[in-house]
Amino acid sequence: MRTAIYKNRLKLIRRQLSKNKLSCLIVTKSANVTYTTGFTGDDSWAVITHRNIYLLTDSRYTEQAERQCLHCRIIIRTGPMAEAAAGLLKKLKSVSVYSGVAIEKCTSLAAFELLKKKLKFRIRTVANVIEEIRSIKEQSEIAAIRTAARIAAQALKQTAQYIKPGVTENELAGMLDFQIRKLAATNSFDTIVAFGPNASQPHHRTGTRKLKKDDTVLVDFGVKYKNYCCDLTRCFTVGRPTHFYKKVYDVVREAQAAAIKTVRAGAEIREVDSAARDVIKKHNLPVYGHGTGHGLGLEVHELPVVSAGSKDRLKAGQIITIEPGVYIPGRVGIRIEDDILVTKTGRKLLSRNCPHSPLSP
Amino acid sequence: MRTAIYKNRLKLIRRQLSKNKLSCLIVTKSANVTYTTGFTGDDSWAVITHRNIYLLTDSRYTEQAERQCLHCRIIIRTGPMAEAAAGLLKKLKSVSVYSGVAIEKCTSLAAFELLKKKLKFRIRTVANVIEEIRSIKEQSEIAAIRTAARIAAQALKQTAQYIKPGVTENELAGMLDFQIRKLAATNSFDTIVAFGPNASQPHHRTGTRKLKKDDTVLVDFGVKYKNYCCDLTRCFTVGRPTHFYKKVYDVVREAQAAAIKTVRAGAEIREVDSAARDVIKKHNLPVYGHGTGHGLGLEVHELPVVSAGSKDRLKAGQIITIEPGVYIPGRVGIRIEDDILVTKTGRKLLSRNCPHSPLSP
Repeated sequence: MRTAIYKNRLKLIRRQLSKNKLSCLIVTKSANVTYTTGFTGDDSWAVITHRNIYLLTDSRYTEQAERQCLHCRIIIRTGPMAEAAAGLLKKLKSVSVYSGVAIEKCTSLAAFELLKKKLKFRIRTVANVIEEIRSIKEQSEIAAIRTAARIAAQALKQTAQYIKPGVTENELAGMLDFQIRKLAATNSFDTIVAFGPNASQPHHRTGTRKLKKDDTVLVDFGVKYKNYCCDLTRCFTVGRPTHFYKKVYDVVREAQAAAIKTVRAGAEIREVDSAARDVIKKHNLPVYGHGTGHGLGLEVHELPVVSAGSKDRLKAGQIITIEPGVYIPGRVGIRIEDDILVTKTGRKLLSRNCPHSPLSP
Repeated sequence: MRTAIYKNRLKLIRRQLSKNKLSCLIVTKSANVTYTTGFTGDDSWAVITHRNIYLLTDSRYTEQAERQCLHCRIIIRTGPMAEAAAGLLKKLKSVSVYSGVAIEKCTSLAAFELLKKKLKFRIRTVANVIEEIRSIKEQSEIAAIRTAARIAAQALKQTAQYIKPGVTENELAGMLDFQIRKLAATNSFDTIVAFGPNASQPHHRTGTRKLKKDDTVLVDFGVKYKNYCCDLTRCFTVGRPTHFYKKVYDVVREAQAAAIKTVRAGAEIREVDSAARDVIKKHNLPVYGHGTGHGLGLEVHELPVVSAGSKDRLKAGQIITIEPGVYIPGRVGIRIEDDILVTKTGRKLLSRNCPHSPLSP
């Protein structure tokens, strides 16, 4: 049953190899190794030919690889990875100097140089072959991200009681992470908690600031469940919010809703992006410098990129974040982020269990 | 004052550039960018010439870069990083096709290919230029790692009360991480908690297993403080430990002590490694497959590698872990890991605030 999933993935990848006249792809990005082999350990590569898929790992992972990678040939390396890959390629009859060998562009120069030295023939470099395929999610992947978002909502709910004057950003982030662990999941990235004007820096580093009696909170966090990531941002107020904060919050909500409304298979990504920015412009507020969203999956940032510069259209089965924000340095920072499945006719909000503004302003 | 630290680091790096006949080094590894510029944001490179150091970042980080990098020239890029780097190099008078330009080998092929395309001259690749210098710690770095280890000890102490039958691995890891956050620090890597025979896999993934009445616990965790990492492993027993567990524990302690005793500037690293392994062999227990230790600093794994294959000697100012273990699949896993500063005459245990076996067997 599970093997069927990998068979289908490999079919799609091999179609791309044929199109590019390649006999073989060396897969070095960890998420791509997991996607094609099922293996979740570190320090491993995959080699995909038209006939087979090989997992190159080491003795720490023998047992795990045998359990997780039933459809793979497992090679336990002893020397450096690039040496093991070269050794394998030399043995494969379908692979030669003329047959077209490619490696992923995310590979380090160090590994590539060693591989070239050992293999002594031209290796092409390719980008996004597997990432493009990964961007369209299968049912089990959608289910995992949906569950991740549900766990995130539950963890945040269980943390709400700790959002009280006196708590520090660090403590609140720590308590949220604890609830995530209690729910048998992990973080998909380091939780960001920003109080008051700290939220105006989209990349604020969670620190020792204490929550005041009348204050605001931004929480940007994600849950990883069965290797799949969700990514959410919520903003709350404690005590009495200012009129201005409420106004900006409503604008960000409106901007997010406008963008979400445009999501469906075939929609131009730059239109989704501009739908959110237009609302913020209309209200004479500063438009955010970051993208409007990104794909989610085995990685917390993956294809598609949802930005003004995109020339692509959304495809059914993609899962993206929509996360517009308004940042006024030293004054206010509000971002609202949800996870959305693109469908043929529209969209499904995967993070709908996570209420907006649970502490009512 | 702080600028003096960077001046000294750059002096050491430029000496290496001269030795290698280089006019310029493109620094792409995040920890090396932090080490040379002080910048702690993401997605940034540094370019070091004999005259200047440049930080290439983007508009998200303008304010932070200006605050953190007083000794650098800051370039806010808009296009891809490699394009910005090529643009800078073309403008520098000291840099030409003949002057020797190098880039770090950890750079991705994608960035390297774009850089070559834009720059149109040969770029050399180098490894470990900055890493070698980083391996010798300055006083402020030693102080940061010492504090990280103290916070780790404190966090573990505050977690001890939760080590009770019924708690899951996930919950215990989450509680430990929470205590670390409360102490205004973060994890240096994902905390590993393994109960009972789960500890026999050195790469066990913290899960949903519950602690039993008579059981054992392995905790491998690290704290990051002021960007510097510590790394500790402790093993506890709950209820009545078996005679065999106590025996193995004592052997691992003896192995660790034997290795630590050999640590001093000038000691051969492979001798440090074998000191630990010899004790385990002597007791007819299986010798661990991983290295005996590794350097600690801005990264949780850095130079030197403490393994049987090393041809290097320890140097004063290096900080290393010593972490032998005994693993018998399905039966027992015990590893003890401490952080040690190499001095001219011997060593200093930086993690001495963290008692071994706080729950006495």
